[in-house]
Order: sequence, then structure tokens, then C-alpha cells
Amino acid sequence: MPFKEKGGKLYSVQLDPKEIPGIEALGVTNVTSMADIPEPIDYALVAVPRQVSPFVLKDLIANGANGAGFFTSGFAETGEELGIKLQAQLVEMAKGANFNLVGPNCMGLYLPKAGVRFNADAPVSDDGRVGFLSQSGTHGIMFSLVAGANGIGVSRCASIGNAVVLDVSDYIDYLMQDDETEVIGMYVEGVRDGRRFFETLREACKRKPVIVWKGGQTEAGSRATMSHTGSLAAPSAIWEGMMRQCGAITTQNLDETIDTMKALLSAKKPRGNGMALLAQTGGQSVSITDAFARAGWDVPAFTDDTYAQLGEFFNIIGGSFKNPLDMAGTVQGKTETLDKILSIIEADPNIDGMAMELSAMFAARQWKANPATLDSTLDILKAHMTASEKPFVAILHPAHEMEYIGSILHKFHERGIPVFQSFERAASALRRVSDYWASR
Amino acid sequence: MPFKEKGGKLYSVQLDPKEIPGIEALGVTNVTSMADIPEPIDYALVAVPRQVSPFVLKDLIANGANGAGFFTSGFAETGEELGIKLQAQLVEMAKGANFNLVGPNCMGLYLPKAGVRFNADAPVSDDGRVGFLSQSGTHGIMFSLVAGANGIGVSRCASIGNAVVLDVSDYIDYLMQDDETEVIGMYVEGVRDGRRFFETLREACKRKPVIVWKGGQTEAGSRATMSHTGSLAAPSAIWEGMMRQCGAITTQNLDETIDTMKALLSAKKPRGNGMALLAQTGGQSVSITDAFARAGWDVPAFTDDTYAQLGEFFNIIGGSFKNPLDMAGTVQGKTETLDKILSIIEADPNIDGMAMELSAMFAARQWKANPATLDSTLDILKAHMTASEKPFVAILHPAHEMEYIGSILHKFHERGIPVFQSFERAASALRRVSDYWASR
Repeated sequence: MPFKEKGGKLYSVQLDPKEIPGIEALGVTNVTSMADIPEPIDYALVAVPRQVSPFVLKDLIANGANGAGFFTSGFAETGEELGIKLQAQLVEMAKGANFNLVGPNCMGLYLPKAGVRFNADAPVSDDGRVGFLSQSGTHGIMFSLVAGANGIGVSRCASIGNAVVLDVSDYIDYLMQDDETEVIGMYVEGVRDGRRFFETLREACKRKPVIVWKGGQTEAGSRATMSHTGSLAAPSAIWEGMMRQCGAITTQNLDETIDTMKALLSAKKPRGNGMALLAQTGGQSVSITDAFARAGWDVPAFTDDTYAQLGEFFNIIGGSFKNPLDMAGTVQGKTETLDKILSIIEADPNIDGMAMELSAMFAARQWKANPATLDSTLDILKAHMTASEKPFVAILHPAHEMEYIGSILHKFHERGIPVFQSFERAASALRRVSDYWASR
Repeated sequence: MPFKEKGGKLYSVQLDPKEIPGIEALGVTNVTSMADIPEPIDYALVAVPRQVSPFVLKDLIANGANGAGFFTSGFAETGEELGIKLQAQLVEMAKGANFNLVGPNCMGLYLPKAGVRFNADAPVSDDGRVGFLSQSGTHGIMFSLVAGANGIGVSRCASIGNAVVLDVSDYIDYLMQDDETEVIGMYVEGVRDGRRFFETLREACKRKPVIVWKGGQTEAGSRATMSHTGSLAAPSAIWEGMMRQCGAITTQNLDETIDTMKALLSAKKPRGNGMALLAQTGGQSVSITDAFARAGWDVPAFTDDTYAQLGEFFNIIGGSFKNPLDMAGTVQGKTETLDKILSIIEADPNIDGMAMELSAMFAARQWKANPATLDSTLDILKAHMTASEKPFVAILHPAHEMEYIGSILHKFHERGIPVFQSFERAASALRRVSDYWASR
């Protein structure tokens, strides 16, 4: 696959004559010296032996380059004298020239609009709404891939590595001012200037939702961050208090981070705590209720009017139309029934939002055999969400159908339907988002 | 697909002449009266209109049948007078004849050895080791499917429905005496005879591990169980106390139940609390540590001897060989390195067990391109597990590769390698199992 050159011209700087034919075969222009690049550089990704990196930075500064991500590692994170010395040299040069140095020891920038990616599997898109920064290269890459696989478009993402020139606060400061970024997320292990971080984060939280996933919140985990990024532990209670004061949404792993973003971007703001829970069968109606109740949601009775309307067509044998609803498996196949149920519940004043189970078991039976029923079911959900003022979330547990479910999730994402892999994940993502909006 | 007749001859009893050609086309012998079946019935599955069910039961008793599952619903669970009356009639007839009536309002029995299933997608196997009973038909079916998809063989499974003749305690009593059942699991919403349930469960827990997933533990959830199985709520604290006294392992959903079974069946018993954590990259080394520490595991330092041995070949740039290990992505490709690391850590006296991350990102890069590396990696893990006295668990998060990961999980199961979908799920399954063995 040729490199994507969406954002401008791509140059390679490579001295090794053995590598050059392969680079040119990809359609990329190679030069053997930065001085041969005939225009100012927007962004450079530097992957050279650590001893060479100061020379590369010198050439970049001479070019007038806007900035660079240093993939090169082996600096202060190793604890070695040479690494510490080389890092200090980069910092001095970059600060002296006011140069935007990302890293070192990082993946650099993921800029979907410009076609700059960490990984060829990550999407290129123009309409990303989420900005992310990561003190871990892997979590940065995984975020770009998992966000993409969940239909979440990324505006800009930075893997910040040792963050010796541009630090966490610089990236937050950028993302909070960036109009294309509606939601900010981050993976952080530690920050150097706590005061500035606190002030920047507080300001960012005033402008848009900010999700903070802190690595190393346990004692053992904080020893791991020492080895990884040299970050000292912040006592968990102090950190949590700081997050609360700023108004940040906190998460503990990538799944929670992605789920929360999904709920923020695709579900309407809940105005109250009363959820209608729609399950396909009786056992699942109990399980979805336990999961949502554990996450602090109310599952109120419907009004008499709702009961009267549902009672006109619900079969008492096998199903139940109290809240939670047990739809006895009829709904994944019969779209007109689904439409009717959604409209009736939407109008119920006791209800502030809806969560609906879609079942892998029925999916395997009905959707595989007749894919048009999947499309028509999702079209109804989309139409409902468009017309509704209340949040709606879908749950589709992959269960025994991981391969098949993995192949159809894009159909939810294309329609902007937030779909979660378990009742618990849906309930807690919506909880975080609801608590966030309630605190504003 | 013709019906599986593994356990004996299969008869259909059907009066409707329109249905008979289709039944015979499946290769199943149809008769129009139970009296025409020329041998005693081992097991019957009854799916008739509710008013007809007493007549069918009469014929079954006349045949000398061993037992039957009544799929038919519409009994006391509806709250309707007719349903209540019909149920009472079934109970009286069955008790009078000492007849093993499963249900009604259930899926009946899943007997993999005999080829009797809830669903054609559930496996048929001779070597199942887990027995399960479920007060919900869906949870029974989903258990049979999800256990199968996780490589967990089922000995016997009952969907017990209204449980008006055979109750929860009867099934527990059976499974605890069944030599083929090594682990018992159950989904229960409520029991009629609390004293007998407590005594039976306590006895079962003395003989083998018992996992109890209680539906309706929240207030809203217990209202849902009222609609579903008419079960009254047991106050959560009383229930939990009862489970502790019996020595049962408790779970909150199907995923936790399956994960715990997997750890019980495939991981060695931990002798202590010190885990070695092997991650592919730095960020994941922090995340796996946070997850295991939150679940109460220690992540101790290795001995000096271990450090010395690992230091001989670990590259300090990019990786780290403290506990947790950051293997810098080298291990999923290089199997000889993996083998060496596992052997060194196995010998460390500070370490009581091992959890190892396999990464969807590297899987996509390395295993897809070269499937033999997946097989050889898993062969090394299997050889390690066979030789080791300590528990070993693998974690492979589906991340952005749900379709691909779904297609390769069977390779782990075939080798008996317990693989979990997240750090948190692995840490908590192993925690439950470790606490269980420690309490014995």
C-alpha cells in the first residue's frame, strides 16, 4: 500500500543505499540530507540511532520545521548516563529554538485528517471529534485502532513519550483550543509540573468533557510507571480529589475510556435517572436490571397509559411488559413491533433514557439468515434516536458469536448508534456521562 | 442437519398431518400417539399448548418414561387462573407418579453426551466436566453456547423453569453425586425451600467447587425476578452470608461465571499471592499491574538470580525486566525467547503464578501474516503449563480485531490454555479461584 499523502508531500531522508530502492518503490521521494528538502517541514517523524538524534534535530531547526516526533528511544528512561546526556542535549536545543519536539521515545502524532498515522490499520478521516494524548506509545496506538473499530473519529492524537519539551499540559492546552476536538481523552502516568497541569486541566474541563485514564493508580502499578516513564506515584486519594475539583471524568482502562467517549458523542444528555430497560428474554431482563441498578440507575414503573398501550399487543405468555421489558425475542425480527414499543416508551414521562439488549443468539438465528432484518432493525433504532430527546444505548454481547458480531458492528457505528459489549459497560459509561452533565 | 441421535432412538409425536412430512424428512420417526412408542422413554421434550400438557403427562406416565422437560409455558408465571390451575394439575400428577418433571416453562435438559441440546449450535461432547442449572431458559442456552465457545465442556445442564416438581436442590443433589461433573455452576433467582437449599448447597460445596450466579440481587433486579420466575427477593446481605457459610463462589453475570470455570478447570491451584505479569509493551505492563493489584494480587520483585538470568538477553532499550515485564513486543514472534523467559520466572521462589498478555496489535501483524508463529507460541505455552506447578493465564483482548481473535480462540482452548478477554477479567477470575482454594 502506498503511503497516504493526504496532507501534503511526503519525503524520506535516508542515507543507506540498500533502503532507498524500497522507499522509492512505495512512491516516496527520498533525499539523503534534510537540506535537500525544498520546502519548510510541517512535521517530521525521527527514527534514528539515539546518538544521531541531536544532528537530526539541528537539521530540522535549520529547515524551519514546525515540529517533530522522536520515535528514537534510549534516553533518560533507561537510567543510563549516555541516554540522560543525549536527552538533555535535545531539550536544550529544542527549547533554545522554540522547537515543537514530541517525545522522544514515542509514536509521535496521529493526524487522521493529514493521513499521518501510527499504524496503517488506523483510519484516515476528516470528521474526527475526539482528541487524545498518551504517555504510552502502545496505549496511543491501541486508542487509535480501538477508537476506529468503535466508530469514534479522532481529530488529533499524540503519543508524548518522555515529554521533555512539550508536556501533558501543552497538549491539553492545544486540544482545548482546537475547535475540531469536542471531547478530550488522555492516558497519563505522571506530570512534571503539577500546578500547571491542574490549572490547564481545570480550564479544559470548563470548555469540553475531558476523560482522564491514570496509569499506576495502585502501589504496584506505580512501581511499573517508574520503570516505564519514570513517573512518580501521586497518592490515589490526592489524584482523585484533583480530578473531582477539575471536573474531569476518570476511567481505569482503555475500554472504559472508549465506552465513555461513545456515550458522550452518540447519546443524548440524560435529564434524569429513570431508565427503561428492553431485553429480549426474561433472564436477560433480570441481568440488565441488576447491571443498571448496580451502576446507580433507577428502573421506574411506566405510567398507566404506557401499560395500557403496551398491553394491547404484548403477549402475556413468555413476555412481560413491566420495566424491564421482556420482549420474548419477537423484536429482533419484527421491526414494526420494535418501532411501536420505542414510540410508546419514548412518550412516558417517568423515563429519561433507554437501554436495549440485542441478543447474539437471535442475531445468529435471524440476522445471519436474513441480513436485511439487521439493517431494518438498525434503521428503526437510528430513526428513533434522531427523533428522541432522551439517550438511547444498545447492548450486543459478542457471547459465542465474536467473529460474526465483530463483522457487523460497523453497521451500528455508521448509523451513530452507541453499542456496548455488556450491560455493565453500557450502564457504567452512561453513568459517567450522566454524572458529568449533572455536575455542570 | 439431521437430529443427532447419539444417545438412543429419537421419536417425534405429532398429530398434525401438515408437520409430519417435514419431521420424516429430518430422518426422525413420527408416531401420532405416545402409546405407539415401542420402548420406555428416557427423556421427552414437551412443547404443546398448555391445556394439552396434562394429557401428555398422563401418556408419559403410562409409558413408564424416566422424565420430561416441559417447554410449554403459560402456567403460574402468568398469574392467570387457568395457568395456575394447569400447573397444580401437573404437579399433582407428577408427584403422585414420582415422575421427573423438568420445568414447565423451560428449555429442559442439555445432555451433550446423549446429543440432547437446547440449540443446534451447542456442542456435543463426551468429556464435559461442568454441570449447570439455570432458572432462566436464556441463561441456560447462553451458558451452553458460551461455555462451548470458551472450550468448556458441559457434562449436564438443566433449564429448570418454574421448577414445580424438581427444584434447585434436586438438581444440585444430582450434580454433586455425578462423577462426570467436577464443577457445578448455577443461575438462580430464588428457591422455595431455603433450609433444604442451604443444606444441599453446603454439602455440594464440600465435594466440588460450586459457582452461584444470583439474579435479582439489586432491588430493581428483584422486581424483575418477580415478573420472570415469581421469585421473591432474598436480602442481599443474607444471601451473601449464606454463600460464604456454604463455601460457594459467587458471580454476578455469565462472563464472570464462565471465566471462573475456565480458571478452575485450566489453571493450577495458586499456592500464594505473588504474580509475575508479562506484558508485551510498557503501557500494558502498567495496565496489567493496575488490574491485578486492584484484584488483590501482589506483584513482587524477582530474586537477584532471576534478574541476572533475564539481564543476559533483555534489551534495556524499549523493554524492562522488572516485574511486571515489558517484553517490548519481541516475544509473540520469537518463541525461543518466550520459552527462556517462562522457564526463568517459573523457577523464581517469589512467584506463585503467571499472567501473560498477548496483544491483538502484534497478533494482527505477526500471526495473521504467519499463522505458524501463533501455533508455535501456543505450543510453548502449553508445554510450559504442563511442566509447571503454578497457575498460568493468558490475556488476549479482542480490541480492534474482534473478528480475527474470534476465529483463533479455539486454538487456545484445544490446548487447554485459559485465555481471558481483559486484564480485569483474568485477575478477578483467578482471585475467585484462589480465594476458594485458600478457604478449603
